[in-house]
Amino acid sequence: MSFVLVTGGAGYIGSHTVVELIQNGHQVVIVDNLSNSSYDSISRIEYLTRSKVPFHKVDLTDYSGLDAVFDQYEFKTVLHFAGLKAVGESARNPLKYHNNNVIGSINLLRTMQSHGCKSIIFSSSATVYGDVTRLEGQRIPIVETCPTQPTNPYGQTKLAVENTLRDVFAADQQWRIAILRYFNPIGAHSSGLLGENPHGVPDNLLPLIAQVASGRGKFSVFGTDYDSVDGTPIRDYVHVVDLAQGHVAALHHLDGLKEGTGICREWNLGTGTGSTVFEVHSSFERASNRKVPYTVATRRPGDVLNLTADVSRAATELGWRARLTVDKACDDLWLWTERHPSSGYQNVDGRVRLSSATGAIKVQIGAQGDIESITIGTQRLQGTRIQFKNLYGPAVRRTSNGFAVEYATDTTPIVYQFEFQSESRVCFTLYEIGAESLPRFEQVFEAVSEKYACSSSTFEIVDEMVET
Amino acid sequence: MSFVLVTGGAGYIGSHTVVELIQNGHQVVIVDNLSNSSYDSISRIEYLTRSKVPFHKVDLTDYSGLDAVFDQYEFKTVLHFAGLKAVGESARNPLKYHNNNVIGSINLLRTMQSHGCKSIIFSSSATVYGDVTRLEGQRIPIVETCPTQPTNPYGQTKLAVENTLRDVFAADQQWRIAILRYFNPIGAHSSGLLGENPHGVPDNLLPLIAQVASGRGKFSVFGTDYDSVDGTPIRDYVHVVDLAQGHVAALHHLDGLKEGTGICREWNLGTGTGSTVFEVHSSFERASNRKVPYTVATRRPGDVLNLTADVSRAATELGWRARLTVDKACDDLWLWTERHPSSGYQNVDGRVRLSSATGAIKVQIGAQGDIESITIGTQRLQGTRIQFKNLYGPAVRRTSNGFAVEYATDTTPIVYQFEFQSESRVCFTLYEIGAESLPRFEQVFEAVSEKYACSSSTFEIVDEMVET
Repeated sequence: MSFVLVTGGAGYIGSHTVVELIQNGHQVVIVDNLSNSSYDSISRIEYLTRSKVPFHKVDLTDYSGLDAVFDQYEFKTVLHFAGLKAVGESARNPLKYHNNNVIGSINLLRTMQSHGCKSIIFSSSATVYGDVTRLEGQRIPIVETCPTQPTNPYGQTKLAVENTLRDVFAADQQWRIAILRYFNPIGAHSSGLLGENPHGVPDNLLPLIAQVASGRGKFSVFGTDYDSVDGTPIRDYVHVVDLAQGHVAALHHLDGLKEGTGICREWNLGTGTGSTVFEVHSSFERASNRKVPYTVATRRPGDVLNLTADVSRAATELGWRARLTVDKACDDLWLWTERHPSSGYQNVDGRVRLSSATGAIKVQIGAQGDIESITIGTQRLQGTRIQFKNLYGPAVRRTSNGFAVEYATDTTPIVYQFEFQSESRVCFTLYEIGAESLPRFEQVFEAVSEKYACSSSTFEIVDEMVET
Repeated sequence: MSFVLVTGGAGYIGSHTVVELIQNGHQVVIVDNLSNSSYDSISRIEYLTRSKVPFHKVDLTDYSGLDAVFDQYEFKTVLHFAGLKAVGESARNPLKYHNNNVIGSINLLRTMQSHGCKSIIFSSSATVYGDVTRLEGQRIPIVETCPTQPTNPYGQTKLAVENTLRDVFAADQQWRIAILRYFNPIGAHSSGLLGENPHGVPDNLLPLIAQVASGRGKFSVFGTDYDSVDGTPIRDYVHVVDLAQGHVAALHHLDGLKEGTGICREWNLGTGTGSTVFEVHSSFERASNRKVPYTVATRRPGDVLNLTADVSRAATELGWRARLTVDKACDDLWLWTERHPSSGYQNVDGRVRLSSATGAIKVQIGAQGDIESITIGTQRLQGTRIQFKNLYGPAVRRTSNGFAVEYATDTTPIVYQFEFQSESRVCFTLYEIGAESLPRFEQVFEAVSEKYACSSSTFEIVDEMVET
């Protein structure tokens, strides 16, 4: 069986792309270091696609860890999302960015080469163009042949990887390399289950507006004296699901090349239509039915009037075009925001909390997918540390009087079932599906806390995931 | 005590620079992976400077190995030479170059940052300019403000590191960063003890001419129809000792900045004067007093007429100017070539042969600086594997009737002494200097081979290293 490797598959664009890949019949393996993403997103991909998705927690700067993944699967193509992406942070800590993004990518390419995998789709960014207005004769919308000159370390790392890819292709024209330059990805999955998970203050416009709409943070509009309809700068916002489908289109383009033919080519992924800051703001106010207050500030250095993509190359060659509107993106983002009032997934780095700390049931999943502990109220269950080889992420479903966490190993599906027998009494059962539901063990706990109802924000999400 | 770290200090430009640094009173520590250089060069640096030079065999892609070196010394500045440099090989194997040059440099910068060392002199190359003639309005000689656009992966890696350095400085303007763009380094140390050590067919003009003068290989002149005095292309050849002194000038410039002032700046290191291929060829024929045959071939793709440096920035700001001529470089290269008829140092990767395999005495030094074996004739001495912590490189000197190999650990200088008692009898003594020359052990061997005289080419070099 031939797999597609998705690095950074737990992240914002990666997770949406994995869903589209699986829905298009591809077998996906995810590698992610979870440094800026959540194990939750993988459970939710599995829930949405009704598929188990092999996951390996590997940092791409760890060459041997990555190599071990390549030893385990045969990959036909790699979709390479993994990377840090905060422009502001990159300016403050450029070595962190060069280390993660550049070293990670070189390691990935070396591993691919040594395993004979020569097909890659790389997440680049419109940031590589830099300030296009610096160039005489360059026009908006921006074409792929526009000279590159990033204005921040994040963009430098993207360009460095692009240059490496072009060098690799020049040396061996059997490679198939798609460089996708994203404009401004926005929105979330229409299920409300996948979205962006920014830590701290969001770096980008829409997550920031969404946060302010939720009553946190402040929103400044930097410059209202640009030469646009309303004085605010124009950007090309593309729905993350459109973007995800662009990757599928690129993959099919690479797969469809004639036997023995290679390619190394850049494609812009945008809508081709710009929106101003005020237009996006209005759209989000409409979607959320809330007022989003803002203050007007002066222009930021480095900001320019208009960065909109010429998307004709992707349309002609990949047969892909963005279909979803900014309005639709705002609707989806608001659904995601409302369901995740604490700004995205509740957990990072291998931990899954099925309930937040309001006193109900908490299951902690370790980095390897093992259950580290189960806490009911303040009581911590002993003897619950069970190691599974090749354990897939948990799927959670509501039961008649509680909920169940379902796992699968390669051979054995396993269910942890929690039944609320009364408000102060819970029954915890572990059994294997298919083993005629014989419980492996059963234990009843008296609750310390008084309430097991699905009152926590996270558990409400779980509640949505009912299979009927 | 504050040290200067020289990465790649065993290499061609690195080794010459270390000599100049020591002669200017700096305490140098060398890090080198010896992948394209020889342990011999370090012994010779020690001989030339009469100094022990701490050496660590570390590959810069090994972050923890590098970090351990920084834990051991306090470095005020790093001179960063380590890197692969063969343009042709870089086009065939770009990932090797990106891995070594880019990952190595990012690791180095991260280690420096974590140890609070913020001063670096980086070996860049005129290759970053690419084909300057592509640019309208760009002139020869080339100024540092000329836009960069490398035409090969080697140049891409140099530019990638330059960009990283500029990002680092933008984030923290306490850094002191000198980017030195070399034109065409040539020549050798006038002692004949240090020079270039090309493996295989040389990539550059002068080592190739020297090899052909020694009776090996073939020399083609690519294009005699350029618009120059003799129809061959013009390059800016700079004597390696001048180049080495340029680094000392850059170091003093950084050291001389006002407290709390940082800098990140590029300087061309060249002569400002171009020479044609035929001019260099004639100069070498004169120096060697040999005819160097050549054939005329068509132009190579990518070659351009003239790449000569504008050197006024280095002259004005660093107070440095190249003083040595191409003729002097050819003289020195010929001395080096005659003394090293097998193309440079005899050994790589941690081995030192004090004698070549003509039947005399051979001492093999392991990667950690330990003596792996001593062979006299075909007899291999047992029990000679001795590990030293922090062992410095060997210095070799002639004794009245043999020679001695001198080592030093941090606490204990040690001498291995070989005395030729007769043509078939050698006395081998190990003792510690300072311990009143009490031998640790003494052993006499009957020779198997008939001759211990200094007949081998390598041993003749050793013979030069007499302390009188």
